[in-house]
Amino acid sequence: MEEFKVKDISLAEKGKGRIAWAEMQMKPLMLIREEFEKEKPLANMQISMALHVTKETAVLVRTLKAAGAKIAITSCNPLSTQDDVAAALAKEGINVFAWRNETEEEYWNNFNRILDFKPELIIDDGADLISLIHTKRTELISRIIGAAEETTTGIMRIKNMERENVLRFPVIDVNDADTKRLFDNHLGTAQSTFDALMRSCNILLCGKKIVIIGYGFCGSGLAKRAKGLGAEVIIVEVDPIKALSALMEGYRVMPMSEAAKIGDIFITVTGNKNVINEKHFKLMKNGAILLNVGHFDVEINVKKLREIAKEIKQVNYCVEEFKLENKKLYLLAKGRLANLACAEGHPSEVMALSFCNQALAMKFLVENKGKLENKLYAMPKELDKKVAELMLKAKGVKIESLTEEQREYLESWK
Amino acid sequence: MEEFKVKDISLAEKGKGRIAWAEMQMKPLMLIREEFEKEKPLANMQISMALHVTKETAVLVRTLKAAGAKIAITSCNPLSTQDDVAAALAKEGINVFAWRNETEEEYWNNFNRILDFKPELIIDDGADLISLIHTKRTELISRIIGAAEETTTGIMRIKNMERENVLRFPVIDVNDADTKRLFDNHLGTAQSTFDALMRSCNILLCGKKIVIIGYGFCGSGLAKRAKGLGAEVIIVEVDPIKALSALMEGYRVMPMSEAAKIGDIFITVTGNKNVINEKHFKLMKNGAILLNVGHFDVEINVKKLREIAKEIKQVNYCVEEFKLENKKLYLLAKGRLANLACAEGHPSEVMALSFCNQALAMKFLVENKGKLENKLYAMPKELDKKVAELMLKAKGVKIESLTEEQREYLESWK
Amino acid sequence: MEEFKVKDISLAEKGKGRIAWAEMQMKPLMLIREEFEKEKPLANMQISMALHVTKETAVLVRTLKAAGAKIAITSCNPLSTQDDVAAALAKEGINVFAWRNETEEEYWNNFNRILDFKPELIIDDGADLISLIHTKRTELISRIIGAAEETTTGIMRIKNMERENVLRFPVIDVNDADTKRLFDNHLGTAQSTFDALMRSCNILLCGKKIVIIGYGFCGSGLAKRAKGLGAEVIIVEVDPIKALSALMEGYRVMPMSEAAKIGDIFITVTGNKNVINEKHFKLMKNGAILLNVGHFDVEINVKKLREIAKEIKQVNYCVEEFKLENKKLYLLAKGRLANLACAEGHPSEVMALSFCNQALAMKFLVENKGKLENKLYAMPKELDKKVAELMLKAKGVKIESLTEEQREYLESWK
Amino acid sequence: MEEFKVKDISLAEKGKGRIAWAEMQMKPLMLIREEFEKEKPLANMQISMALHVTKETAVLVRTLKAAGAKIAITSCNPLSTQDDVAAALAKEGINVFAWRNETEEEYWNNFNRILDFKPELIIDDGADLISLIHTKRTELISRIIGAAEETTTGIMRIKNMERENVLRFPVIDVNDADTKRLFDNHLGTAQSTFDALMRSCNILLCGKKIVIIGYGFCGSGLAKRAKGLGAEVIIVEVDPIKALSALMEGYRVMPMSEAAKIGDIFITVTGNKNVINEKHFKLMKNGAILLNVGHFDVEINVKKLREIAKEIKQVNYCVEEFKLENKKLYLLAKGRLANLACAEGHPSEVMALSFCNQALAMKFLVENKGKLENKLYAMPKELDKKVAELMLKAKGVKIESLTEEQREYLESWK
Repeated sequence: MEEFKVKDISLAEKGKGRIAWAEMQMKPLMLIREEFEKEKPLANMQISMALHVTKETAVLVRTLKAAGAKIAITSCNPLSTQDDVAAALAKEGINVFAWRNETEEEYWNNFNRILDFKPELIIDDGADLISLIHTKRTELISRIIGAAEETTTGIMRIKNMERENVLRFPVIDVNDADTKRLFDNHLGTAQSTFDALMRSCNILLCGKKIVIIGYGFCGSGLAKRAKGLGAEVIIVEVDPIKALSALMEGYRVMPMSEAAKIGDIFITVTGNKNVINEKHFKLMKNGAILLNVGHFDVEINVKKLREIAKEIKQVNYCVEEFKLENKKLYLLAKGRLANLACAEGHPSEVMALSFCNQALAMKFLVENKGKLENKLYAMPKELDKKVAELMLKAKGVKIESLTEEQREYLESWK
Repeated sequence: MEEFKVKDISLAEKGKGRIAWAEMQMKPLMLIREEFEKEKPLANMQISMALHVTKETAVLVRTLKAAGAKIAITSCNPLSTQDDVAAALAKEGINVFAWRNETEEEYWNNFNRILDFKPELIIDDGADLISLIHTKRTELISRIIGAAEETTTGIMRIKNMERENVLRFPVIDVNDADTKRLFDNHLGTAQSTFDALMRSCNILLCGKKIVIIGYGFCGSGLAKRAKGLGAEVIIVEVDPIKALSALMEGYRVMPMSEAAKIGDIFITVTGNKNVINEKHFKLMKNGAILLNVGHFDVEINVKKLREIAKEIKQVNYCVEEFKLENKKLYLLAKGRLANLACAEGHPSEVMALSFCNQALAMKFLVENKGKLENKLYAMPKELDKKVAELMLKAKGVKIESLTEEQREYLESWK
Repeated sequence: MEEFKVKDISLAEKGKGRIAWAEMQMKPLMLIREEFEKEKPLANMQISMALHVTKETAVLVRTLKAAGAKIAITSCNPLSTQDDVAAALAKEGINVFAWRNETEEEYWNNFNRILDFKPELIIDDGADLISLIHTKRTELISRIIGAAEETTTGIMRIKNMERENVLRFPVIDVNDADTKRLFDNHLGTAQSTFDALMRSCNILLCGKKIVIIGYGFCGSGLAKRAKGLGAEVIIVEVDPIKALSALMEGYRVMPMSEAAKIGDIFITVTGNKNVINEKHFKLMKNGAILLNVGHFDVEINVKKLREIAKEIKQVNYCVEEFKLENKKLYLLAKGRLANLACAEGHPSEVMALSFCNQALAMKFLVENKGKLENKLYAMPKELDKKVAELMLKAKGVKIESLTEEQREYLESWK
Repeated sequence: MEEFKVKDISLAEKGKGRIAWAEMQMKPLMLIREEFEKEKPLANMQISMALHVTKETAVLVRTLKAAGAKIAITSCNPLSTQDDVAAALAKEGINVFAWRNETEEEYWNNFNRILDFKPELIIDDGADLISLIHTKRTELISRIIGAAEETTTGIMRIKNMERENVLRFPVIDVNDADTKRLFDNHLGTAQSTFDALMRSCNILLCGKKIVIIGYGFCGSGLAKRAKGLGAEVIIVEVDPIKALSALMEGYRVMPMSEAAKIGDIFITVTGNKNVINEKHFKLMKNGAILLNVGHFDVEINVKKLREIAKEIKQVNYCVEEFKLENKKLYLLAKGRLANLACAEGHPSEVMALSFCNQALAMKFLVENKGKLENKLYAMPKELDKKVAELMLKAKGVKIESLTEEQREYLESWK
């Protein structure tokens, strides 16, 4: 059996350097690695995983290996593999089957290759791997202890499987951990979005009117940063409680038809479609900049924008100019996730928390082998707290602890 | 039957003026009054209510009256009645039985008087009235449609009654409405606490190290305001996820034993006891100021502080000086809720939201007469949203609404 | 010769307590006291001073006394004396001649009484004392070493005297010290203004549109705090550079005629007259609140407001309601300095810095006796820095110092 | 005479596109262009200029051309020319002599070429051009009306010339305009520095301890942004007044020897040398990141860091890793201006303001031909204000204006 397949094994040295940099940023995951090295909680476990093969994922892979596991990995997206990292992992003995720009055939072929290693544990991102096992590789199911999944989309698919009673091993939902949402959605999205804006446009943010459409966990993070960068913040929301909440932060709140007329920059993050639509394009000021950081590229009606444009120019790698009747509008990343497309997505430290949850989920599955049902489990609160504790430890921060007296007082309360 | 009993009916004119000022601040409740005046949803209903008899409550009373109800009211606390407001209400034909500094006998006597009006609806604050009906005035139960309760303590008592299967009419929990918590806990507490600090100490807040013990909904609001006032914020927390969340806002996080040494001002809001204890007093700097805004006066160990003090002096109406071995410490409001004791508690606008929920709960009970079970109901989400909508309307703020296409998209998502 | 004249000497004990509280807040001045106690730089000097006789001034008086000086003091304002503090000072042997609500005759009589002590040094606030010496008490001039003055108004009068060549002793301008302006104008005004708003109106500040008219040192401080308290900030300015600077902080900037229509609260601090005028009253929303914190009560055209009001009511000690055609407006403190009238003015800590400058100016005058001309001197930069150093020391803050190499580098640069 | 010399004229189209994008961001300069197009204030003037040949400079060049001037331009730095922009300018008939990576001989040769056009007006950046005219091209002096210079370094050189009485035409100091300092130093530096940090390290900034060394105009801007991005801010300063000012913003203030131990990121901006020195490297935590945004690369003692490093690795294009005894430190841009080296320097909008001042200085020189002495002139306040007005106009912002009555009041005051 072939051990790995990567683009160019000679890139290993470069990849190694980049993984080292990521390790420096991912301290809580390194603390788990230390624990795992001593305890070997995954001894003799075969893990097959489909994640973006990036320097951050490599830190997770090394951590699982330190725990005693053998790893086979492919990419959950045919475009996202960092070939130098893949090479470095291959050199370290990981069974990597991934390269940037896989064809669809190659993509699925690689999925099958990592399953050939007969895994006990699965790590998935989007549920393609879990799905494949349930449809075409059912011979593997009997040996699988469980899986972990970290995306909203993947969780949704698994919930459907659960509802239809076809799920055949337990899955841990690491997507709903506070230590995932707190960083990933609220903090990670905000920083990487403004990074993207600065990198691609190099415009001064202070003094600008920034319209944020959607004031959920992501939107409120974006608003906080926009304010911190000196912008005037305008919120567009459909939910009155969220709108009121935004107002109480000192932001202006208005419908899109009014915001469209005055905004300098528009950021969509609603989870809904066409929140910026034809009528809004027509109201906008000359020079307005539009970007989306919601998951799907449906929030800005880009199709319509292309239709009504008299001329379209690529200003730089990330910015397109749309010449309309009496103005120019600028669109980032074709309306796709701008923080990923125009910058580098979440900082490593954010990924550290998500991957801590992944690593602990693996250990939890092994420890509870045979005790779990074939359903979707929330990330155990105690493990979520443990991730926060590791992050605090990594940052050298100590917190208060309850006295015996206080613990009793709180319990008597109940 | 006597129509009212107040301290001094000649105070009515002054009370009327103060109620008018409150009405100016409580616009969403005034909008409900307009609706109620047209629709008369509480026509012929007798409401008996036990709330703090303040200018804000008077605005609620007038609103219920406008809806067609007859009102009998007493105070839920023997010390909190504003006598001028009570007089003004009496003059307007409300059956008020309340005055500042009631004896315990008078207190309970007044409760019984308002029940003599044979209510269909109950508004309670702390559940003393609901409890009285269930124990000594059970003859009234058959005609009672339901009640609303707005405090954490009251809800706890009702949950106990529900658990023990003794609750004999439906109760609406207005305490858990977002429009209550969002304002009352997070925003109202923060503003009134710093108001209290400034009024009682007149100290410069910028450049001070302010230690906030507890980073829940209240504590995070306090931290935000402390930062906004130019202070350095230090958070003491026991929960690692909350602690991490505080750290990510740029606050310092540390155990109390370290914070005690460096803080200039200490604010407790944990819901736990002795979070500032003898060992912390000993570590503090000369001149440190201590205050509590948690519900009960157990958070600072005041008893111990009195014991170890060599001398205690009242600096002003709200501040006591404790001379210890080698320093002086300053305590606000004897460790009781400082924002109420040293300032005026929540602004009227905050109360407007709580009382909008109360008013809408009354209408909901009447509309659903006979359809509800004898249990505790969460404030219906739609009414909660409606309160937010009224607040936005009162402030002249319009928000976005979903298109038909968007509504379908969101549903298809599910 | 009578030693003192106060309202009621029996108030001394109460005054003593309040002075002790002020001393706790005025640490840098206490550090100067320590120095002065050892060095006695004002030994045998008679100081006559006209300042507001408050607890903070008492801390200055005690400091000067510790330096070896004898003090005679009266109030620079017939309304501002704190009688308990005056009593306490009298009891400590200070020659106090001051009480609240002096008649004009008593006011000037007291000025003459403190001059009867034949001072070498003068501390003035508004230049009434310096003026009196130059006109009616010229016999004292030959023995006077110099004076210090701390208000803008006083400095203006002395500049006029200087220009007309009539100034007959040196005067130190403590008004222009950075450690005065930094605290007094930018920080002190901001905190005390919002204190005043909360005390007198108890309104929720977050979510409000606060219009600040004037974006100088005071206005920019107010804006920063308004933002920190969760308000939406709107700036009205006539200077384009200041306006642009405000815009770059994320504030909205617009002319008064637009701001008038949307503001909830209006704060004037321009140094100019009628910045809120009749036409603006007419544009305002029902319920708008108006206050001035500029030095003179000319910024809001209160006279016109009274004329056009159909009805005027006193809502509470600090707030008047003006009923216009179709709305009610609320005015604080009759358009006078609201932070003083509705709250307690600057915190003690702010006054500590101003008074450190006063104390060091006295020492400087004695050290430079005979070397100074009869003109106005800026506060020496070294003393200004020393005040900052004392404040840092009082707060336990250490700063960096230059190495020899760095000092040379900086000088070579020049 | 050769008309231009650029690297590759075929790059013109690409350059044209980039200039168009800059024009979109540089609206106030575009407004001046509109004025200049009508008035032709520089008709028949030959301008020779030495500036960085970038897209922003091209917008200035086009503006001067619109005013009627003929332009010859070279680069003030042999490394900074954008070859596509140079090509675009050449194609538009500008006499460009500049390309990236000129030899020293080529550099000075190009300077001489642009002088061969016999200028009446000079625009300089660093004073190399003015210096050359005064030494080797003195034949040109008689026809030169004046010059404008925009850097601190250049101004220093001209001050020396003035002091030594060798300056032979008037020079306008556009460096000291408020509209230059306000943007360039305080706002531009701050944004571009954090842009640089994010681009080169992709680290999460919230929750980090960011040490800012130097709290002048740049440092205070950096601190404000660091806070706005969720970091804990630590200030190192030698001036007590600035240090106190930082403390009053809620920042921590401490000497470098303490800050070194706890900081995650260190930013120098002092104008002094070795502010981070060997002893500080030794105190730092593993993983600390160091960058300089002060003008010269002397602030971090990089030479010493290289000496004591056991191993040095290039992590990416902008980051070097220094392995010391027991840790790794990371240095950006070899200690040079990180905001320029790792990001793109100031946003176009910031440059717009500097260049508005340049353009207006040219017009001012022509209007005052023969009236000015051979000395350095401050940028006239009225022109500075005009730049602010143009920026406000470009952003659609209206400000208040004084009434006749107010103007009189202010004057009477004086």
